[in-house]
Amino acid sequence: MSDNLLSNINNPTDLRLLDEAQLPQVAQELRDFIIDIVAVKEGHLGASLGVIELTIALHYVFDTPNDLLIWDVGHQAYGHKILTGRRKNFHTNRQLGGISGFPKRSESIYDAFGVGHSSTSISAALGMAIASNLKGDFNKQHIAVIGDASIASGMAFEGLNHAGVTDANLLVILNDNAIGIDPSVGALKQYLTAVKAGKNPRQNNMIKSLNFNYSGPIDGHDIFAVIKELKRLQKTKGPKFLHIITTKGKGLQQAEENQVKYHAPGKFDAATGEIHIKSEENLPPKYQDVFGLTVLDLAKKNEKIIGITPAMPSGSSLKFMMEAFPKRAFDVGIAEQHAVTLAAGMATQGMVVFCNIYSTFLQRGYDQVIHDVALQNLPVIFCLDRAGLVGEDGATHHGVFDLAYLRCIPNMIVYAPRNEIALQNILYTAQLGLDHPIAIRYPRGRGVIADWQTQHLGTYKKIEIGKSICIKEGSKVAILSNGTIGNNVTLAIAKIKHPETIAHYDFSFVKPLDEKALHTIFTTFTTIVSIEDGAVKGGFGSAILEFASENNYTSKVTILGIPDEFIEHGTVAELQQYCKIDVKSLEIFFSSY
Amino acid sequence: MSDNLLSNINNPTDLRLLDEAQLPQVAQELRDFIIDIVAVKEGHLGASLGVIELTIALHYVFDTPNDLLIWDVGHQAYGHKILTGRRKNFHTNRQLGGISGFPKRSESIYDAFGVGHSSTSISAALGMAIASNLKGDFNKQHIAVIGDASIASGMAFEGLNHAGVTDANLLVILNDNAIGIDPSVGALKQYLTAVKAGKNPRQNNMIKSLNFNYSGPIDGHDIFAVIKELKRLQKTKGPKFLHIITTKGKGLQQAEENQVKYHAPGKFDAATGEIHIKSEENLPPKYQDVFGLTVLDLAKKNEKIIGITPAMPSGSSLKFMMEAFPKRAFDVGIAEQHAVTLAAGMATQGMVVFCNIYSTFLQRGYDQVIHDVALQNLPVIFCLDRAGLVGEDGATHHGVFDLAYLRCIPNMIVYAPRNEIALQNILYTAQLGLDHPIAIRYPRGRGVIADWQTQHLGTYKKIEIGKSICIKEGSKVAILSNGTIGNNVTLAIAKIKHPETIAHYDFSFVKPLDEKALHTIFTTFTTIVSIEDGAVKGGFGSAILEFASENNYTSKVTILGIPDEFIEHGTVAELQQYCKIDVKSLEIFFSSY
Repeated sequence: MSDNLLSNINNPTDLRLLDEAQLPQVAQELRDFIIDIVAVKEGHLGASLGVIELTIALHYVFDTPNDLLIWDVGHQAYGHKILTGRRKNFHTNRQLGGISGFPKRSESIYDAFGVGHSSTSISAALGMAIASNLKGDFNKQHIAVIGDASIASGMAFEGLNHAGVTDANLLVILNDNAIGIDPSVGALKQYLTAVKAGKNPRQNNMIKSLNFNYSGPIDGHDIFAVIKELKRLQKTKGPKFLHIITTKGKGLQQAEENQVKYHAPGKFDAATGEIHIKSEENLPPKYQDVFGLTVLDLAKKNEKIIGITPAMPSGSSLKFMMEAFPKRAFDVGIAEQHAVTLAAGMATQGMVVFCNIYSTFLQRGYDQVIHDVALQNLPVIFCLDRAGLVGEDGATHHGVFDLAYLRCIPNMIVYAPRNEIALQNILYTAQLGLDHPIAIRYPRGRGVIADWQTQHLGTYKKIEIGKSICIKEGSKVAILSNGTIGNNVTLAIAKIKHPETIAHYDFSFVKPLDEKALHTIFTTFTTIVSIEDGAVKGGFGSAILEFASENNYTSKVTILGIPDEFIEHGTVAELQQYCKIDVKSLEIFFSSY
Repeated sequence: MSDNLLSNINNPTDLRLLDEAQLPQVAQELRDFIIDIVAVKEGHLGASLGVIELTIALHYVFDTPNDLLIWDVGHQAYGHKILTGRRKNFHTNRQLGGISGFPKRSESIYDAFGVGHSSTSISAALGMAIASNLKGDFNKQHIAVIGDASIASGMAFEGLNHAGVTDANLLVILNDNAIGIDPSVGALKQYLTAVKAGKNPRQNNMIKSLNFNYSGPIDGHDIFAVIKELKRLQKTKGPKFLHIITTKGKGLQQAEENQVKYHAPGKFDAATGEIHIKSEENLPPKYQDVFGLTVLDLAKKNEKIIGITPAMPSGSSLKFMMEAFPKRAFDVGIAEQHAVTLAAGMATQGMVVFCNIYSTFLQRGYDQVIHDVALQNLPVIFCLDRAGLVGEDGATHHGVFDLAYLRCIPNMIVYAPRNEIALQNILYTAQLGLDHPIAIRYPRGRGVIADWQTQHLGTYKKIEIGKSICIKEGSKVAILSNGTIGNNVTLAIAKIKHPETIAHYDFSFVKPLDEKALHTIFTTFTTIVSIEDGAVKGGFGSAILEFASENNYTSKVTILGIPDEFIEHGTVAELQQYCKIDVKSLEIFFSSY
């Protein structure tokens, strides 16, 4: 009975047949549906619960998919997916072959623009709106729904700054819940907080300064108020801005009370909200915690250490240092460009800066890495979290291009540790002072050394820059691995019939290469295999080929890694298998020699 | 006599010995000095003339180099250079081995941060200011001077947004002259114009919304007013913002009246301001004009064509289309991230978008190229102007990383035309509709076909995607060139004793590679040379190595291109010689076979 409205909504046309008075029931059913499935299938919870009323109102008022609706980032689009034909597939969310966790053009005509990284929605919607004007379609609506964390990113400002001087039929809806994944930061957030508290006179606000028709703030959970305002704005031409106030996690008490934890809570009890605690005993640590705990430990001893994260204190585990040294560790918000150049500025003054940015998001700060850091040869320490295949977040989030896009930059050191000990030791080594900037890339998830925290944390050994390690001698074939994928190599070698034929070298340094070791390897082996958790085009394997070419070696080199295509979502194990870099595939491959 | 003050100023300490009343004379002498030298040596003129008074006032009031001063972009820093020990070397500006056209840390202790790309100054100065606080140095001043075009870029907003919630001793000076290289655009510019006209109440302005202590606007040419205000701000703690109004080109009538032309006017008459017109008769066209005129011509026939430039309508020659089709060609300001995603949004609606961004500046939109365009496989046409070595602008502006950073992106087509005809034909081909995004990279400066405009413009031929061209057969060695550097190859081959030994192939497509041709080449030649006007690490040559590795070819491949270091300023000819890709070096190299 409680499901009787939602189960008949297969697309927004069905929704629009309902009376407005029935919509609160749809909202309740939609919330329950999301909670019930995410509780067992996992996924992003809080953001979608916060925009249930807005989602229903948008599809009720506007003529989607003819009107174009873009969800910034897309964590909040579960309700949208369920109302637009994906209710029955929603249980496959983020699984291999299932629907994506983010809006995606190839998945549905209702997903006007693929998202994942933040702050793209205003630019994309403006582009669509300008196109509509040029095509003479002056009634089409173009709507960007963006959160208060995302709108503070520079890219969003660029979009607003342009939109304000156009006559584009653009509606920007600010979903203001004062939190991204972690609580929002920055001066704009303080300003918005003041607006909400009625402390800023509406008639002269910042958004109006940018020529937008501003309305709000209104209660985003009052579905009738939202519908009324959307209907009014539907008739208003030009760039419009609606400020709505919502609560992340709305409707599930624990999610409202602990918004960071319930952003993506894992499995939980749908009725009580209680998170199912997995036993972490005897599990190796997450690389994130190896970073976070090591930097905390180092910061205690080296007062020049500074930590920077763009909006990922929890995800990166920089939170440990932020709690202990709040004046020396900074969450700068979703501002990768700023984060990199801020680090550069600090480095000019002799500070030792750990700038932690997810590999996929450092793409946002690429110019700053080249122009502000590497060109000036400032020893900033970039820590690239979630490098390589990231699993269920999928194509938008895999950090697979970094080796290629960093390796071409002069002065850069590029390093990927094979395990927790190597990660802590390179962090230790870097803060001793290097002659160059360094990028340290490590994956999402757990390492391989269960007793790392009790037995190894704090016991440091300096790493020689550019040095490879011979993990295992062998007679026939040399495997050169970069980073944690080397653990797959070790496991695969152990499984083959003639492990004595395979030599294994850990080439953690993609740049500089260990040329001395390579000379030995190329004069010893006629068959060489490189393997990396990164794009094969231009990556570690290419560096090995360049070395061979420069030195006239003719050994056969085979490059394993991520093929030249965008890899979809699935578990890391599934995706490694797809890319043939999982243990089983390597076992078969090594056996062929 | 007129030089008697300036000639005794060898550093700011000398300046500070003068009476305030003498400073207008210093200003006059400094202006004359810059005009006299730039008139014969060329360089950026207008920006520096506009900040003469500000420059003197800053060094007069603040304790540089202990107080840290950052000039955003740096076009305006000639006066700063002259007052800080580089007066006698100023005539070597932008020449090989001479001083850089931009502030540069390795050049002077007074250059607190190297610049070139815009909008970095706030982040860098904030980083320095936070470092000073941590070091307990609470009196040190950290000053960012930024123009109204640069402050509208997203990165600057990110810096302001962070600074506003700190207690950093940061002074941001907005040098508002309503123009960058071309006139400024956007809603923020309109807002600032209104502020200047007294139409916005000061007490509640946008900058104050970001928690800055705002003052201004004041007349930036009233040196006494500027000094007085700087002295007041010197005593004010926390983030401060001073809005000054200046005139670009101030003091040279023609430069004030024609600010775009006098941004970097080339040689001119120092007394009259008259620009020395070089005869352009019989010269091949600039690649910029090939782009601009071809896109204009194509836009007349294909109404789906849209042009986008981030703040470079003159530099890119998109101005031709902007004049003819103002509704279909957009200057979005210094907003590369927005430019790329705006293009993506338009492409979803079937528009054919030429998004023209300098190669070095596309680094700012890298994530958007991957995430918003390539991942969604939208057929945006990126035109990468000033790719390869750019000459006098130097290390900050060479567009040498693009082949490496684009080649690793799935779905991308990467193309570099060998000459004007190839450029116009690929533009023609792209607008017919491709299955993928394409990046077309071409250099700064002139082509090789003098009669292109009269004989070729508008006569199009479709290019087969991924196809190479055999320019010349040969018996011994195969040269594979990418882009216009192939013209050096042709000239070099013509000069050697046995040109019949050298085969030359134009591999304009770095991606997809012409694998069919490569199979033939690798089975025919044991010696292969690749050459590109780009970084050898991960670029075109690496792609050839990857092909050889995948297909078990053992021919010797030599890669020519830009070595793994930052290349300084000089003429393109000088820098090609340094990189050994000039005609003479190639002649010697080819003769060695």
